Amino acid sequence: MNPQAAQAIDLLIGARWIIPVEPHGVVLEDHAVAVANGVVVDLLPVADAAAKYAPRERIDLGAHALIPGLINAHTHSPMTLLRGLADDLPLMTWLQRHIWPVEAKVIGADFVRDGSELAIVEMLRGGTTTCNENYFFPDVFAAACRRMGFRAVAGLPVIEFASAWAATPDEYFERALAVHDELKGDALVACAFAPHAPYTVSDSSFERIRTLSDQLDIPVHLHLHETAQEVEDARSGHGARPFARMQGLGLVNDRLIAVHMTQLTDAEITACAEAGVSVVHCPESNLKLASGFCPAEKLRRAGVNVAIGTDGCASNNDLDMLGELRTAALLAKGVANDASAFDAAYALRAATLDGARALGLADRTGSIEPGKSADLAAVRLDVPETQPLYHPVSQLVYAASRRQVSDVWIAGRRRLADGVLCDVDVEAVLAKAGRWRERIAAIH
Amino acid sequence: MNPQAAQAIDLLIGARWIIPVEPHGVVLEDHAVAVANGVVVDLLPVADAAAKYAPRERIDLGAHALIPGLINAHTHSPMTLLRGLADDLPLMTWLQRHIWPVEAKVIGADFVRDGSELAIVEMLRGGTTTCNENYFFPDVFAAACRRMGFRAVAGLPVIEFASAWAATPDEYFERALAVHDELKGDALVACAFAPHAPYTVSDSSFERIRTLSDQLDIPVHLHLHETAQEVEDARSGHGARPFARMQGLGLVNDRLIAVHMTQLTDAEITACAEAGVSVVHCPESNLKLASGFCPAEKLRRAGVNVAIGTDGCASNNDLDMLGELRTAALLAKGVANDASAFDAAYALRAATLDGARALGLADRTGSIEPGKSADLAAVRLDVPETQPLYHPVSQLVYAASRRQVSDVWIAGRRRLADGVLCDVDVEAVLAKAGRWRERIAAIH
Repeated sequence: MNPQAAQAIDLLIGARWIIPVEPHGVVLEDHAVAVANGVVVDLLPVADAAAKYAPRERIDLGAHALIPGLINAHTHSPMTLLRGLADDLPLMTWLQRHIWPVEAKVIGADFVRDGSELAIVEMLRGGTTTCNENYFFPDVFAAACRRMGFRAVAGLPVIEFASAWAATPDEYFERALAVHDELKGDALVACAFAPHAPYTVSDSSFERIRTLSDQLDIPVHLHLHETAQEVEDARSGHGARPFARMQGLGLVNDRLIAVHMTQLTDAEITACAEAGVSVVHCPESNLKLASGFCPAEKLRRAGVNVAIGTDGCASNNDLDMLGELRTAALLAKGVANDASAFDAAYALRAATLDGARALGLADRTGSIEPGKSADLAAVRLDVPETQPLYHPVSQLVYAASRRQVSDVWIAGRRRLADGVLCDVDVEAVLAKAGRWRERIAAIH
Repeated sequence: MNPQAAQAIDLLIGARWIIPVEPHGVVLEDHAVAVANGVVVDLLPVADAAAKYAPRERIDLGAHALIPGLINAHTHSPMTLLRGLADDLPLMTWLQRHIWPVEAKVIGADFVRDGSELAIVEMLRGGTTTCNENYFFPDVFAAACRRMGFRAVAGLPVIEFASAWAATPDEYFERALAVHDELKGDALVACAFAPHAPYTVSDSSFERIRTLSDQLDIPVHLHLHETAQEVEDARSGHGARPFARMQGLGLVNDRLIAVHMTQLTDAEITACAEAGVSVVHCPESNLKLASGFCPAEKLRRAGVNVAIGTDGCASNNDLDMLGELRTAALLAKGVANDASAFDAAYALRAATLDGARALGLADRTGSIEPGKSADLAAVRLDVPETQPLYHPVSQLVYAASRRQVSDVWIAGRRRLADGVLCDVDVEAVLAKAGRWRERIAAIH
């Protein structure tokens, strides 16, 4: 073998198992991922890698599964600072008497910066490499992502109420477009419109969003049909179910990321499939707030793209995507009354590639394929909790804990190394969270 | 202060928070537990402890919550060796085509010893100090518990089929009574009858169990109303729902530990409350096998004692009681359509004190109270995933991972010290699990 024939690359990662997600259901044993310039260039047997590549850095993970970084398709990162502030309450009591009054007093650039940092720390430690964000001050969130090397879609909020971010609908749109322009071409952070919900956004704002999302070719990230009450109130108020109203406004299309969707008729499911709508299933939030059950398996069978999200930490109370995809897989079987529903391989795809599809990022992330960004997570499987091991995908979905995530790379940059975050002062992040705790406890 | 006035004790454990579970909902800050001869003798402010006690060993846990050890009220420990062997299958296909054929070839003392050791390793690492066991070779299981210092109720199996444990109903009873005699007075391992299920046990065996459980004053641990199919088959076969059949046989009483109970009429719920039946809710197993939804909140409101179990690892796929009580708390809200259902404090009690009640061990374990055994688990809460912290019980139930369990004591004996098992050769346990994996994969 002539070593000069070996191709120079940045990184070669070998693992006992690699689960690329695409092709579906495949588990590669004793393979390696070759990375150059942040991009996956090859996926090949470890035995062949030494001759073919001369990596600058070589990592042999041993008894780990290497998977695409997890994609949290719906969250409100700064709400991490409200984790466990108020539990065991119905959605509207929780929002109106606890969350909104506190948020009204604290939301600002500092809260968003400190909460986003804590959320990114938690997500990275749990193997999440991308999130779909929905909150105020998306510019501050985006800056945190760029600083910490985290991939995201920053939601550009639109709501008919004044906030610390914007006072009027016009100002929401002005600021949205400014953030969009600022992030244009960014390697890590993309944008989506994030109108809060049908019950807090007017038809005229939705019409502007429709026009702008067409022009800018960006997704629309919307809470939709979260509860039966929302649907019932809309019927009495607008005379139509919110989904029908969105259809009328031209928003039911392949750029729509519809979050929650616990109340769906068969006709609405068919319409989602035909229009190419992505649905984000947030099972733990829906259970905790007793919002209803998203028919995840029925959507899947109808051909709808289903992604998974944790929702914010105030209603979950974590950003644990491994836990969330397990809950999704378990709950779907109960709801469908079919133990073969939403199987392990499908649950993993929903939390990776189908999340990327929902966010319009499937050309860039969500699977381990040559040409895609090296967004990777390694999960250690040789601990008692995941032994013996018959099927790595089963172990990941039904037994592994996020604390078994050892390493994470985003765009080829190592963000977690053997359980330790890279280039992040975790103590400083926690100290800031502690100060917010004192301030928020005093006003709640 | 006269140091000679201090009382000699074995152990004093101080923690930022102690959650004794009894009284309900109480969180003690900066308190300590005093332990002598394996028993809790006092619970007092850290500031007062130094003057009052002269401990042989003193442990200051810092930012931890100290809770009663978790009680897994239904499991099949050796099935840990079948973790993830067959997933995403309906109950009867899973049992008849995968689990039972494999079990028929492997069940014996070696399988039960090695699987029990792996299960106990997993349970201890996750803060579980007691389990209610249901499997063959309860003598071998009991020996593993005694060797590893783990508390349990060993189920004495009764089933109408021959197995490696016993060939005939008579032999099942003979062996059951022999194990019961052998364990009489044991400090760690008690017994219960464990008839498999109404569809695998005859009336005459149930009658003998009823008589013997009266005489010996031990519980009866039974899978009951696990699926709609079970209830429907019984109606066509026996002409009665299984619960009614158990009522007719005199087994519906305060010694009955009824596991699963996903199919219940209001009258059956009332009957459970009146008779003092304990129900063990296994939410993840019920979801995974699409068995149905146990009406946990309705049972609680009716005054039924509800405990929580993981079921065996082959249908879960873990023995994670912190995860299971979270799923129980979340799912109960969804099923009851009430976000205030099964609140965090109640979920923690179901996984501790109410588990002890179900097992007939409430005088000995399940809460941190003077006079009870020092069965304790410490959960570290200063990691990013559980910060900021407003309410420790909320953090434990809705955010903490079992990997945050740092320390465990059973009867005052330290079993886990800062994440490391005491006096257990984990590598040897894993090596044996690895050998079973090879053998089982070859025959499956």
